[in-house]
Amino acid sequence: MDAAGLEILSAEECLRLLDEVAVGRIVYTDRALPAIQPVNFIVDGPSVVIRTASRSRLAIAATGAVVAFEVDEFSDEWVRCGWSVVAVGMAAQVTDERELAAVRRRGLEPWAPGAREYYLRVDIAIISGRRLKARQRVCGR
Amino acid sequence: MDAAGLEILSAEECLRLLDEVAVGRIVYTDRALPAIQPVNFIVDGPSVVIRTASRSRLAIAATGAVVAFEVDEFSDEWVRCGWSVVAVGMAAQVTDERELAAVRRRGLEPWAPGAREYYLRVDIAIISGRRLKARQRVCGR
Repeated sequence: MDAAGLEILSAEECLRLLDEVAVGRIVYTDRALPAIQPVNFIVDGPSVVIRTASRSRLAIAATGAVVAFEVDEFSDEWVRCGWSVVAVGMAAQVTDERELAAVRRRGLEPWAPGAREYYLRVDIAIISGRRLKARQRVCGR
Repeated sequence: MDAAGLEILSAEECLRLLDEVAVGRIVYTDRALPAIQPVNFIVDGPSVVIRTASRSRLAIAATGAVVAFEVDEFSDEWVRCGWSVVAVGMAAQVTDERELAAVRRRGLEPWAPGAREYYLRVDIAIISGRRLKARQRVCGR
């Protein structure tokens, strides 16, 4: 348990949960302001790969920066359980042709429309997670 | 539509959606690293109020800083629809007794256990939102 009374998840469990959800949130700084954007993604070894447009704010602001990537799942107001995982690491454009081909084979298809041929990899340096237990003992996972 | 092909939501719709969900994510900088934490919250006028412990990393790092607050809802991999709203503004501790009493009457009960007598208000200076339309035309809202 942490100081807030939440269960601390192991790195292994964090990686497992990260791989279970379709949409996460990338957190970065854009023109000195905190920015966050939901994205679909794949987990590739100890990293997260997303697709964006090469002239997007995300590509411009996050490439070469330390970013956070968050996933979570929470129940409703009544049951009040859930978990969250946050990975922190450097974001870099995937430019190596073999690496690009490998990522493309994984079928990372962006949910949003528009050309998105910029692959951004977040190398996970730190990963942490917390679980909130249900009030009603009816929460899964 | 924005450059990425997503529908741009009006400020009014953003505020309506913000008020519909129980859990959001506060985004701040903690010791020069991007940080994000899920929290339950209430919307109070043009601001978001959350509760935390007075010695939490969140209270220490976010108070007096410009933070982002994000809410979203996404469907599954198949339908691929959803929306997200991001509010940006200064976070400040609620210390005025009348203001505290008003917030307490609203019944902002933290989901996580532990003493959480530190009320943090994020005054919304900028709010923006996007909606991703479903592939399958079966998405609500």
